[in-house]
Amino acid sequence: MITSMANRKVKYIATLQKKARTRREEDLFVAEGLRMCREILPEEIHELFLSESFAATKEGAAQARRAHNVEIVSDAVFAAMADTQTPQGILALVRQRHYTVDEVTAAADGRPALLMVLEHLQDPGNLGTILRAGEGAGVTGILMDGGTADIYSPKVIRSTMGSVLRMPFTYVDDLPAQLDLLKRRGIRLYAAHLAAKHDYDEENYTGSAAFLIGNEAAGLSAETAGKADALVRIPMQGKVESLNAAVAASVLMFEAARQRRAAERGDC
Amino acid sequence: MITSMANRKVKYIATLQKKARTRREEDLFVAEGLRMCREILPEEIHELFLSESFAATKEGAAQARRAHNVEIVSDAVFAAMADTQTPQGILALVRQRHYTVDEVTAAADGRPALLMVLEHLQDPGNLGTILRAGEGAGVTGILMDGGTADIYSPKVIRSTMGSVLRMPFTYVDDLPAQLDLLKRRGIRLYAAHLAAKHDYDEENYTGSAAFLIGNEAAGLSAETAGKADALVRIPMQGKVESLNAAVAASVLMFEAARQRRAAERGDC
Repeated sequence: MITSMANRKVKYIATLQKKARTRREEDLFVAEGLRMCREILPEEIHELFLSESFAATKEGAAQARRAHNVEIVSDAVFAAMADTQTPQGILALVRQRHYTVDEVTAAADGRPALLMVLEHLQDPGNLGTILRAGEGAGVTGILMDGGTADIYSPKVIRSTMGSVLRMPFTYVDDLPAQLDLLKRRGIRLYAAHLAAKHDYDEENYTGSAAFLIGNEAAGLSAETAGKADALVRIPMQGKVESLNAAVAASVLMFEAARQRRAAERGDC
Repeated sequence: MITSMANRKVKYIATLQKKARTRREEDLFVAEGLRMCREILPEEIHELFLSESFAATKEGAAQARRAHNVEIVSDAVFAAMADTQTPQGILALVRQRHYTVDEVTAAADGRPALLMVLEHLQDPGNLGTILRAGEGAGVTGILMDGGTADIYSPKVIRSTMGSVLRMPFTYVDDLPAQLDLLKRRGIRLYAAHLAAKHDYDEENYTGSAAFLIGNEAAGLSAETAGKADALVRIPMQGKVESLNAAVAASVLMFEAARQRRAAERGDC
Protein backbone atom coordinates (compact mmCIF):
# COMPACT_ATOMS: atom_id res chain seq x y z
CA MET A 1 0.00 0.00 0.00
CA ILE A 2 1.21 3.51 -0.85
CA THR A 3 1.20 5.73 2.22
CA SER A 4 3.61 8.47 1.16
CA MET A 5 2.75 11.64 -0.72
CA ALA A 6 6.32 11.54 -2.06
CA ASN A 7 5.68 8.25 -3.85
CA ARG A 8 6.61 8.40 -7.55
CA LYS A 9 3.21 7.21 -8.75
CA VAL A 10 1.36 9.71 -6.56
CA LYS A 11 3.41 12.55 -8.01
CA TYR A 12 2.86 11.21 -11.53
CA ILE A 13 -0.95 11.24 -11.09
CA ALA A 14 -0.80 14.77 -9.66
CA THR A 15 1.11 15.95 -12.74
CA LEU A 16 -1.35 14.21 -15.08
CA GLN A 17 -4.24 15.91 -13.26
CA LYS A 18 -2.66 19.32 -13.76
CA LYS A 19 -0.86 19.32 -17.11
CA ALA A 20 -2.49 18.87 -20.51
CA ARG A 21 0.95 18.55 -22.08
CA THR A 22 1.95 15.62 -19.86
CA ARG A 23 -1.39 13.91 -20.56
CA ARG A 24 -0.72 14.29 -24.28
CA GLU A 25 2.88 13.09 -24.09
CA GLU A 26 1.97 10.07 -21.96
CA ASP A 27 -1.24 9.43 -23.96
CA LEU A 28 -3.12 8.95 -20.68
CA PHE A 29 -5.81 10.64 -18.61
CA VAL A 30 -7.22 10.27 -15.11
CA ALA A 31 -10.83 9.08 -14.67
CA GLU A 32 -12.31 9.52 -11.21
CA GLY A 33 -15.27 7.96 -9.50
CA LEU A 34 -17.11 4.66 -9.66
CA ARG A 35 -19.50 5.68 -12.41
CA MET A 36 -16.70 6.68 -14.78
CA CYS A 37 -14.49 3.70 -13.96
CA ARG A 38 -17.33 1.23 -14.54
CA GLU A 39 -17.71 2.49 -18.11
CA ILE A 40 -14.05 2.03 -18.97
CA LEU A 41 -13.12 -1.31 -20.56
CA PRO A 42 -10.59 -3.38 -18.59
CA GLU A 43 -8.11 -3.26 -21.50
CA GLU A 44 -8.17 0.54 -21.46
CA ILE A 45 -7.18 0.77 -17.79
CA HIS A 46 -3.46 1.38 -17.52
CA GLU A 47 -3.52 1.36 -13.73
CA LEU A 48 -6.30 1.45 -11.13
CA PHE A 49 -5.93 3.23 -7.77
CA LEU A 50 -8.22 2.46 -4.84
CA SER A 51 -8.30 4.12 -1.45
CA GLU A 52 -7.76 1.80 1.49
CA SER A 53 -11.37 2.29 2.67
CA PHE A 54 -12.92 1.76 -0.75
CA ALA A 55 -10.77 -1.31 -1.47
CA ALA A 56 -12.22 -2.91 1.69
CA THR A 57 -15.79 -2.66 0.32
CA LYS A 58 -17.47 -5.32 -1.80
CA GLU A 59 -17.68 -2.90 -4.75
CA GLY A 60 -14.01 -1.99 -4.31
CA ALA A 61 -12.97 -5.65 -4.43
CA ALA A 62 -15.10 -6.18 -7.55
CA GLN A 63 -13.48 -3.18 -9.27
CA ALA A 64 -9.99 -4.36 -8.30
CA ARG A 65 -10.62 -7.65 -10.14
CA ARG A 66 -11.33 -5.75 -13.39
CA ALA A 67 -7.82 -4.32 -13.77
CA HIS A 68 -4.37 -5.89 -14.19
CA ASN A 69 -2.50 -3.20 -12.31
CA VAL A 70 -4.10 -2.22 -9.02
CA GLU A 71 -2.57 -0.02 -6.34
CA ILE A 72 -4.11 0.52 -2.92
CA VAL A 73 -3.28 3.90 -1.35
CA SER A 74 -4.00 5.29 2.09
CA ASP A 75 -7.10 7.49 2.30
CA ALA A 76 -5.00 10.60 2.94
CA VAL A 77 -2.83 9.96 -0.11
CA PHE A 78 -5.91 9.21 -2.22
CA ALA A 79 -7.48 12.54 -1.21
CA ALA A 80 -4.31 14.29 -2.42
CA MET A 81 -4.33 12.43 -5.75
CA ALA A 82 -7.99 13.10 -6.47
CA ASP A 83 -9.17 16.27 -8.18
CA THR A 84 -12.62 16.10 -6.55
CA GLN A 85 -13.37 17.48 -3.09
CA THR A 86 -15.07 14.34 -1.78
CA PRO A 87 -13.45 11.49 -3.73
CA GLN A 88 -15.18 8.11 -3.90
CA GLY A 89 -11.90 6.24 -3.53
CA ILE A 90 -11.48 5.01 -7.09
CA LEU A 91 -9.41 6.54 -9.85
CA ALA A 92 -8.12 5.02 -13.08
CA LEU A 93 -5.21 5.92 -15.27
CA VAL A 94 -6.68 5.42 -18.73
CA ARG A 95 -5.32 5.37 -22.30
CA GLN A 96 -6.53 8.33 -24.35
CA ARG A 97 -8.88 7.51 -27.20
CA HIS A 98 -8.05 8.54 -30.73
CA TYR A 99 -10.61 8.98 -33.46
CA THR A 100 -9.93 9.85 -37.08
CA VAL A 101 -11.76 12.80 -38.68
CA ASP A 102 -13.67 10.19 -40.70
CA GLU A 103 -14.85 8.45 -37.52
CA VAL A 104 -15.89 11.75 -35.96
CA THR A 105 -17.77 13.04 -38.99
CA ALA A 106 -19.44 9.82 -40.14
CA ALA A 107 -23.22 9.55 -39.92
CA ALA A 108 -24.27 7.37 -36.99
CA ASP A 109 -26.67 4.44 -37.42
CA GLY A 110 -27.70 5.69 -40.86
CA ARG A 111 -28.88 9.03 -39.40
CA PRO A 112 -27.56 12.33 -40.72
CA ALA A 113 -24.48 13.62 -38.89
CA LEU A 114 -24.90 16.34 -36.26
CA LEU A 115 -21.48 17.81 -35.50
CA MET A 116 -20.22 20.43 -33.09
CA VAL A 117 -17.18 22.38 -34.27
CA LEU A 118 -15.48 24.25 -31.44
CA GLU A 119 -12.94 27.00 -32.05
CA HIS A 120 -10.88 28.29 -29.12
CA LEU A 121 -13.55 27.26 -26.61
CA GLN A 122 -11.51 27.76 -23.47
CA ASP A 123 -13.65 26.99 -20.43
CA PRO A 124 -13.43 23.31 -19.43
CA GLY A 125 -16.92 23.49 -17.89
CA ASN A 126 -18.38 24.70 -21.18
CA LEU A 127 -16.63 21.92 -23.12
CA GLY A 128 -17.88 19.29 -20.67
CA THR A 129 -21.44 20.63 -20.82
CA ILE A 130 -21.40 20.58 -24.63
CA LEU A 131 -20.27 16.94 -24.58
CA ARG A 132 -22.95 15.89 -22.06
CA ALA A 133 -25.83 17.89 -23.53
CA GLY A 134 -24.60 17.03 -27.02
CA GLU A 135 -24.83 13.29 -26.42
CA GLY A 136 -28.37 13.85 -25.11
CA ALA A 137 -29.30 15.87 -28.20
CA GLY A 138 -27.93 13.25 -30.58
CA VAL A 139 -24.69 14.96 -31.60
CA THR A 140 -22.61 12.44 -33.56
CA GLY A 141 -19.14 13.94 -33.24
CA ILE A 142 -17.06 16.88 -32.00
CA LEU A 143 -14.31 18.60 -33.96
CA MET A 144 -12.04 21.02 -32.09
CA ASP A 145 -9.18 23.34 -32.98
CA GLY A 146 -5.92 23.32 -31.03
CA GLY A 147 -6.98 26.39 -29.04
CA THR A 148 -9.90 24.57 -27.42
CA ALA A 149 -9.55 23.33 -23.83
CA ASP A 150 -8.10 19.85 -23.27
CA ILE A 151 -10.96 17.37 -23.29
CA TYR A 152 -8.98 15.16 -20.89
CA SER A 153 -8.70 17.78 -18.16
CA PRO A 154 -10.24 16.60 -14.85
CA LYS A 155 -12.91 19.29 -14.93
CA VAL A 156 -14.09 18.35 -18.44
CA ILE A 157 -14.03 14.63 -17.65
CA ARG A 158 -16.09 15.21 -14.51
CA SER A 159 -18.67 17.51 -16.09
CA THR A 160 -19.28 15.17 -19.04
CA MET A 161 -20.72 12.52 -16.69
CA GLY A 162 -19.23 9.80 -18.91
CA SER A 163 -20.13 11.31 -22.29
CA VAL A 164 -16.43 11.73 -23.07
CA LEU A 165 -16.21 7.92 -23.22
CA ARG A 166 -19.03 7.65 -25.74
CA MET A 167 -18.73 10.69 -28.03
CA PRO A 168 -16.26 10.59 -30.95
CA PHE A 169 -14.05 13.68 -30.99
CA THR A 170 -10.78 14.93 -32.41
CA TYR A 171 -8.52 17.98 -32.44
CA VAL A 172 -7.50 19.29 -35.85
CA ASP A 173 -4.61 21.57 -36.81
CA ASP A 174 -6.19 23.33 -39.75
CA LEU A 175 -9.84 23.95 -38.90
CA PRO A 176 -10.74 25.93 -42.06
CA ALA A 177 -9.38 23.12 -44.26
CA GLN A 178 -11.46 20.57 -42.33
CA LEU A 179 -14.55 22.73 -42.78
CA ASP A 180 -13.99 22.67 -46.55
CA LEU A 181 -13.85 18.88 -46.30
CA LEU A 182 -17.15 18.75 -44.37
CA LYS A 183 -18.81 20.96 -46.99
CA ARG A 184 -17.63 18.69 -49.81
CA ARG A 185 -19.29 15.82 -47.96
CA GLY A 186 -22.62 17.65 -47.94
CA ILE A 187 -22.58 18.68 -44.29
CA ARG A 188 -24.14 22.14 -43.92
CA LEU A 189 -22.25 24.49 -41.61
CA TYR A 190 -24.15 26.85 -39.27
CA ALA A 191 -22.08 29.42 -37.40
CA ALA A 192 -23.45 30.80 -34.14
CA HIS A 193 -22.76 34.49 -34.65
CA LEU A 194 -24.00 37.63 -32.89
CA ALA A 195 -23.98 39.53 -36.20
CA ALA A 196 -26.12 36.91 -37.97
CA LYS A 197 -29.28 38.04 -39.74
CA HIS A 198 -31.11 34.71 -39.50
CA ASP A 199 -32.78 33.36 -36.36
CA TYR A 200 -31.54 29.87 -35.57
CA ASP A 201 -35.06 28.41 -35.65
CA GLU A 202 -35.63 29.49 -39.25
CA GLU A 203 -33.02 27.05 -40.56
CA ASN A 204 -33.56 23.35 -41.27
CA TYR A 205 -31.22 20.99 -39.42
CA THR A 206 -32.79 17.67 -40.47
CA GLY A 207 -30.00 16.94 -42.97
CA SER A 208 -26.31 16.49 -42.10
CA ALA A 209 -25.34 19.62 -40.16
CA ALA A 210 -22.57 21.11 -38.07
CA PHE A 211 -22.77 23.99 -35.57
CA LEU A 212 -19.69 26.23 -35.31
CA ILE A 213 -19.16 27.64 -31.81
CA GLY A 214 -16.42 30.15 -31.04
CA ASN A 215 -14.47 31.47 -28.10
CA GLU A 216 -16.41 32.64 -25.02
CA ALA A 217 -15.25 36.26 -25.38
CA ALA A 218 -14.22 36.71 -28.99
CA GLY A 219 -16.63 34.37 -30.81
CA LEU A 220 -15.62 32.70 -34.07
CA SER A 221 -12.68 33.95 -36.13
CA ALA A 222 -13.66 35.71 -39.35
CA GLU A 223 -12.00 32.94 -41.40
CA THR A 224 -13.99 30.17 -39.68
CA ALA A 225 -17.29 32.08 -39.73
CA GLY A 226 -16.62 32.77 -43.42
CA LYS A 227 -16.75 29.03 -44.15
CA ALA A 228 -20.31 28.72 -42.86
CA ASP A 229 -23.28 28.14 -45.18
CA ALA A 230 -25.34 30.34 -42.84
CA LEU A 231 -24.75 32.54 -39.82
CA VAL A 232 -27.45 32.03 -37.19
CA ARG A 233 -28.31 33.89 -34.02
CA ILE A 234 -30.47 33.15 -31.03
CA PRO A 235 -32.77 36.20 -30.80
CA MET A 236 -32.47 37.93 -27.43
CA GLN A 237 -35.00 39.90 -25.46
CA GLY A 238 -34.18 42.42 -22.73
CA LYS A 239 -30.66 43.75 -22.58
CA VAL A 240 -28.91 40.39 -22.90
CA GLU A 241 -26.21 40.56 -25.55
CA SER A 242 -25.17 36.93 -25.64
CA LEU A 243 -25.60 33.60 -23.91
CA ASN A 244 -22.96 31.52 -22.20
CA ALA A 245 -21.32 29.42 -24.96
CA ALA A 246 -22.53 26.08 -23.54
CA VAL A 247 -26.10 27.37 -23.17
CA ALA A 248 -26.11 28.75 -26.73
CA ALA A 249 -24.71 25.46 -28.05
CA SER A 250 -27.37 23.53 -26.10
CA VAL A 251 -30.22 25.64 -27.48
CA LEU A 252 -28.94 24.97 -31.03
CA MET A 253 -28.35 21.24 -30.49
CA PHE A 254 -31.79 20.65 -28.98
CA GLU A 255 -33.45 22.65 -31.77
CA ALA A 256 -31.80 20.26 -34.25
CA ALA A 257 -33.00 17.30 -32.14
CA ARG A 258 -36.52 18.76 -32.00
CA GLN A 259 -36.66 19.27 -35.78
CA ARG A 260 -35.38 15.75 -36.41
CA ARG A 261 -38.04 14.24 -34.10
CA ALA A 262 -40.74 16.36 -35.73
CA ALA A 263 -39.57 15.26 -39.20
CA GLU A 264 -39.72 11.61 -38.12
CA ARG A 265 -43.28 12.15 -36.87
CA GLY A 266 -44.13 13.87 -40.16
CA ASP A 267 -45.04 17.19 -38.46
CA CYS A 268 -44.73 20.47 -40.27
CA MET B 1 -8.04 56.67 1.56
CA ILE B 2 -8.36 53.28 3.20
CA THR B 3 -5.05 51.45 3.22
CA SER B 4 -5.60 48.91 5.99
CA MET B 5 -7.11 45.45 5.64
CA ALA B 6 -8.24 45.82 9.26
CA ASN B 7 -10.47 48.78 8.39
CA ARG B 8 -14.05 48.29 9.59
CA LYS B 9 -15.61 48.92 6.17
CA VAL B 10 -13.22 46.52 4.47
CA LYS B 11 -14.16 43.78 6.92
CA TYR B 12 -17.86 44.61 6.49
CA ILE B 13 -17.64 44.18 2.70
CA ALA B 14 -15.77 40.90 3.13
CA THR B 15 -18.56 39.59 5.38
CA LEU B 16 -21.23 40.73 2.91
CA GLN B 17 -19.39 38.94 0.10
CA LYS B 18 -19.36 35.69 2.08
CA LYS B 19 -22.56 35.50 4.10
CA ALA B 20 -26.08 35.35 2.68
CA ARG B 21 -27.48 35.89 6.18
CA THR B 22 -25.60 39.15 6.67
CA ARG B 23 -26.69 40.36 3.24
CA ARG B 24 -30.29 39.60 4.21
CA GLU B 25 -30.04 41.27 7.62
CA GLU B 26 -28.37 44.38 6.23
CA ASP B 27 -30.62 44.39 3.12
CA LEU B 28 -27.55 45.03 0.97
CA PHE B 29 -25.43 43.29 -1.65
CA VAL B 30 -22.11 43.91 -3.35
CA ALA B 31 -22.02 44.69 -7.07
CA GLU B 32 -18.63 44.50 -8.76
CA GLY B 33 -17.32 45.89 -12.00
CA LEU B 34 -18.01 48.89 -14.16
CA ARG B 35 -20.72 47.25 -16.22
CA MET B 36 -22.79 46.33 -13.16
CA CYS B 37 -22.23 49.63 -11.37
CA ARG B 38 -23.27 51.64 -14.43
CA GLU B 39 -26.68 49.94 -14.40
CA ILE B 40 -27.39 50.75 -10.76
CA LEU B 41 -29.32 53.93 -10.11
CA PRO B 42 -27.50 56.55 -7.98
CA GLU B 43 -30.22 56.36 -5.29
CA GLU B 44 -29.69 52.61 -4.91
CA ILE B 45 -25.98 52.96 -4.18
CA HIS B 46 -25.41 52.85 -0.44
CA GLU B 47 -21.67 53.30 -0.79
CA LEU B 48 -19.24 53.19 -3.71
CA PHE B 49 -15.68 51.88 -3.39
CA LEU B 50 -13.00 52.69 -5.95
CA SER B 51 -9.44 51.47 -6.09
CA GLU B 52 -6.78 54.17 -6.03
CA SER B 53 -5.76 53.39 -9.62
CA PHE B 54 -9.30 53.32 -10.98
CA ALA B 55 -10.28 56.52 -9.17
CA ALA B 56 -7.45 58.28 -11.00
CA THR B 57 -8.96 57.47 -14.41
CA LYS B 58 -11.52 59.63 -16.21
CA GLU B 59 -14.13 56.87 -15.94
CA GLY B 60 -13.38 56.45 -12.23
CA ALA B 61 -13.91 60.15 -11.61
CA ALA B 62 -17.19 60.05 -13.55
CA GLN B 63 -18.42 57.10 -11.49
CA ALA B 64 -17.41 58.80 -8.23
CA ARG B 65 -19.68 61.74 -9.10
CA ARG B 66 -22.69 59.39 -9.35
CA ALA B 67 -22.68 58.36 -5.68
CA HIS B 68 -23.10 60.27 -2.41
CA ASN B 69 -20.77 58.07 -0.38
CA VAL B 70 -17.49 57.31 -2.10
CA GLU B 71 -14.47 55.65 -0.54
CA ILE B 72 -11.10 55.35 -2.25
CA VAL B 73 -9.07 52.31 -1.15
CA SER B 74 -5.53 51.25 -1.96
CA ASP B 75 -5.22 48.73 -4.81
CA ALA B 76 -4.07 45.99 -2.42
CA VAL B 77 -7.05 46.52 -0.13
CA PHE B 78 -9.41 46.64 -3.12
CA ALA B 79 -8.08 43.28 -4.37
CA ALA B 80 -8.86 41.80 -0.95
CA MET B 81 -12.41 43.22 -0.93
CA ALA B 82 -13.24 42.03 -4.44
CA ASP B 83 -14.59 38.55 -5.12
CA THR B 84 -13.20 38.51 -8.66
CA GLN B 85 -9.65 37.47 -9.52
CA THR B 86 -8.87 40.52 -11.63
CA PRO B 87 -11.05 43.30 -10.22
CA GLN B 88 -11.75 46.40 -12.30
CA GLY B 89 -11.43 48.68 -9.29
CA ILE B 90 -15.09 49.53 -8.75
CA LEU B 91 -17.51 47.97 -6.32
CA ALA B 92 -20.82 49.21 -4.98
CA LEU B 93 -22.70 48.41 -1.83
CA VAL B 94 -26.28 48.32 -3.08
CA ARG B 95 -29.73 48.12 -1.49
CA GLN B 96 -31.46 44.80 -2.21
CA ARG B 97 -34.51 45.00 -4.44
CA HIS B 98 -37.83 43.65 -3.25
CA TYR B 99 -40.62 42.60 -5.56
CA THR B 100 -44.06 41.41 -4.52
CA VAL B 101 -45.38 38.11 -5.86
CA ASP B 102 -47.81 40.21 -7.93
CA GLU B 103 -44.95 42.15 -9.51
CA VAL B 104 -43.06 38.96 -10.28
CA THR B 105 -46.00 37.10 -11.80
CA ALA B 106 -47.62 39.96 -13.73
CA ALA B 107 -47.65 39.77 -17.51
CA ALA B 108 -45.07 42.13 -19.01
CA ASP B 109 -46.00 44.67 -21.68
CA GLY B 110 -49.30 42.94 -22.29
CA ARG B 111 -47.53 39.68 -23.22
CA PRO B 112 -48.37 36.44 -21.45
CA ALA B 113 -46.22 35.73 -18.39
CA LEU B 114 -43.31 33.31 -18.68
CA LEU B 115 -42.17 32.36 -15.18
CA MET B 116 -39.38 30.21 -13.80
CA VAL B 117 -40.15 28.52 -10.48
CA LEU B 118 -37.02 27.22 -8.78
CA GLU B 119 -37.14 24.75 -5.91
CA HIS B 120 -33.95 24.05 -3.96
CA LEU B 121 -31.75 25.05 -6.88
CA GLN B 122 -28.45 25.16 -5.04
CA ASP B 123 -25.67 26.00 -7.47
CA PRO B 124 -25.13 29.78 -7.76
CA GLY B 125 -23.76 29.35 -11.30
CA ASN B 126 -26.98 27.60 -12.37
CA LEU B 127 -29.12 30.33 -10.81
CA GLY B 128 -27.10 33.05 -12.52
CA THR B 129 -27.29 31.28 -15.88
CA ILE B 130 -31.08 30.90 -15.57
CA LEU B 131 -31.40 34.64 -14.86
CA ARG B 132 -29.20 35.64 -17.81
CA ALA B 133 -30.57 33.13 -20.35
CA GLY B 134 -34.07 33.73 -18.97
CA GLU B 135 -33.93 37.45 -19.67
CA GLY B 136 -32.77 36.62 -23.20
CA ALA B 137 -35.64 34.16 -23.67
CA GLY B 138 -38.24 36.64 -22.44
CA VAL B 139 -38.84 35.23 -18.96
CA THR B 140 -40.97 37.75 -17.05
CA GLY B 141 -40.26 36.72 -13.45
CA ILE B 142 -38.56 34.22 -11.15
CA LEU B 143 -40.13 32.63 -8.10
CA MET B 144 -37.84 30.72 -5.70
CA ASP B 145 -38.29 28.69 -2.54
CA GLY B 146 -36.16 29.33 0.55
CA GLY B 147 -33.88 26.40 -0.32
CA THR B 148 -32.66 28.04 -3.52
CA ALA B 149 -29.24 29.72 -3.58
CA ASP B 150 -29.03 33.39 -2.57
CA ILE B 151 -29.53 35.48 -5.69
CA TYR B 152 -27.31 38.18 -4.15
CA SER B 153 -24.25 35.93 -3.78
CA PRO B 154 -21.23 37.33 -5.66
CA LYS B 155 -21.12 34.32 -8.01
CA VAL B 156 -24.79 34.71 -9.02
CA ILE B 157 -24.46 38.47 -9.44
CA ARG B 158 -21.40 38.01 -11.64
CA SER B 159 -22.83 35.25 -13.83
CA THR B 160 -26.07 37.14 -14.50
CA MET B 161 -24.16 39.86 -16.40
CA GLY B 162 -26.61 42.44 -15.06
CA SER B 163 -29.83 40.47 -15.53
CA VAL B 164 -30.32 40.41 -11.75
CA LEU B 165 -30.94 44.16 -11.97
CA ARG B 166 -33.64 43.80 -14.61
CA MET B 167 -35.51 40.58 -13.80
CA PRO B 168 -38.26 40.64 -11.14
CA PHE B 169 -37.78 37.85 -8.61
CA THR B 170 -38.85 36.86 -5.12
CA TYR B 171 -38.37 34.12 -2.54
CA VAL B 172 -41.53 32.55 -1.13
CA ASP B 173 -42.03 30.55 2.06
CA ASP B 174 -44.82 28.28 0.91
CA LEU B 175 -44.11 27.32 -2.70
CA PRO B 176 -47.05 24.89 -3.14
CA ALA B 177 -49.51 27.58 -1.93
CA GLN B 178 -48.02 30.06 -4.43
CA LEU B 179 -48.39 27.51 -7.22
CA ASP B 180 -52.09 27.19 -6.39
CA LEU B 181 -52.32 30.97 -6.71
CA LEU B 182 -50.60 30.93 -10.13
CA LYS B 183 -53.01 28.25 -11.33
CA ARG B 184 -56.02 30.30 -10.21
CA ARG B 185 -54.64 33.14 -12.32
CA GLY B 186 -54.59 30.93 -15.40
CA ILE B 187 -50.85 30.34 -15.54
CA ARG B 188 -50.15 26.79 -16.71
CA LEU B 189 -47.45 24.98 -14.74
CA TYR B 190 -44.98 22.70 -16.52
CA ALA B 191 -42.69 20.62 -14.31
CA ALA B 192 -39.36 19.46 -15.76
CA HIS B 193 -39.37 15.86 -14.61
CA LEU B 194 -37.31 12.82 -15.61
CA ALA B 195 -40.36 10.56 -15.14
CA ALA B 196 -42.56 12.68 -17.42
CA LYS B 197 -44.38 10.97 -20.29
CA HIS B 198 -44.64 14.06 -22.52
CA ASP B 199 -41.80 15.53 -24.55
CA TYR B 200 -41.37 19.23 -23.78
CA ASP B 201 -41.83 20.23 -27.41
CA GLU B 202 -45.30 18.68 -27.60
CA GLU B 203 -46.74 21.26 -25.19
CA ASN B 204 -47.92 24.76 -26.09
CA TYR B 205 -46.24 27.58 -24.18
CA THR B 206 -47.78 30.54 -26.03
CA GLY B 207 -50.18 31.31 -23.15
CA SER B 208 -49.15 32.31 -19.62
CA ALA B 209 -46.80 29.57 -18.45
CA ALA B 210 -44.38 28.67 -15.69
CA PHE B 211 -41.57 26.10 -15.74
CA LEU B 212 -40.86 24.29 -12.46
CA ILE B 213 -37.18 23.37 -12.03
CA GLY B 214 -35.96 21.31 -9.09
CA ASN B 215 -32.77 20.60 -7.22
CA GLU B 216 -29.69 19.57 -9.22
CA ALA B 217 -29.52 16.11 -7.65
CA ALA B 218 -33.00 15.36 -6.31
CA GLY B 219 -35.21 17.16 -8.84
CA LEU B 220 -38.59 18.57 -7.79
CA SER B 221 -40.30 17.45 -4.58
CA ALA B 222 -43.34 15.22 -5.12
CA GLU B 223 -45.60 17.92 -3.66
CA THR B 224 -44.37 20.61 -6.05
CA ALA B 225 -44.37 18.32 -9.10
CA GLY B 226 -47.91 17.29 -8.10
CA LYS B 227 -49.10 20.88 -8.59
CA ALA B 228 -48.05 20.90 -12.26
CA ASP B 229 -50.60 20.84 -15.08
CA ALA B 230 -48.15 18.71 -17.05
CA LEU B 231 -44.84 16.96 -16.43
CA VAL B 232 -42.48 17.42 -19.35
CA ARG B 233 -39.16 15.85 -20.22
CA ILE B 234 -36.40 16.65 -22.66
CA PRO B 235 -35.94 13.41 -24.60
CA MET B 236 -32.38 12.12 -24.35
CA GLN B 237 -30.33 10.09 -26.77
CA GLY B 238 -27.29 8.00 -25.88
CA LYS B 239 -26.74 7.14 -22.24
CA VAL B 240 -27.38 10.63 -20.86
CA GLU B 241 -29.83 10.49 -17.98
CA SER B 242 -30.29 14.18 -17.36
CA LEU B 243 -29.02 17.62 -18.29
CA ASN B 244 -27.42 20.20 -16.06
CA ALA B 245 -30.30 22.17 -14.46
CA ALA B 246 -29.40 25.46 -16.14
CA VAL B 247 -29.06 23.80 -19.55
CA ALA B 248 -32.42 22.01 -19.15
CA ALA B 249 -34.05 25.28 -18.05
CA SER B 250 -32.51 27.10 -21.04
CA VAL B 251 -33.79 24.50 -23.52
CA LEU B 252 -37.31 24.90 -22.08
CA MET B 253 -37.19 28.72 -21.95
CA PHE B 254 -35.98 29.05 -25.54
CA GLU B 255 -38.59 26.55 -26.76
CA ALA B 256 -41.24 28.82 -25.21
CA ALA B 257 -39.58 31.83 -26.89
CA ARG B 258 -39.47 29.98 -30.23
CA GLN B 259 -43.17 29.03 -30.02
CA ARG B 260 -44.14 32.60 -29.12
CA ARG B 261 -42.19 34.02 -32.08
CA ALA B 262 -43.70 31.41 -34.40
CA ALA B 263 -47.20 32.24 -33.10
CA GLU B 264 -46.59 35.95 -33.77
CA ARG B 265 -45.48 35.11 -37.31
CA GLY B 266 -48.58 32.94 -37.74
CA ASP B 267 -46.56 29.74 -38.39
CA CYS B 268 -47.94 26.33 -37.57
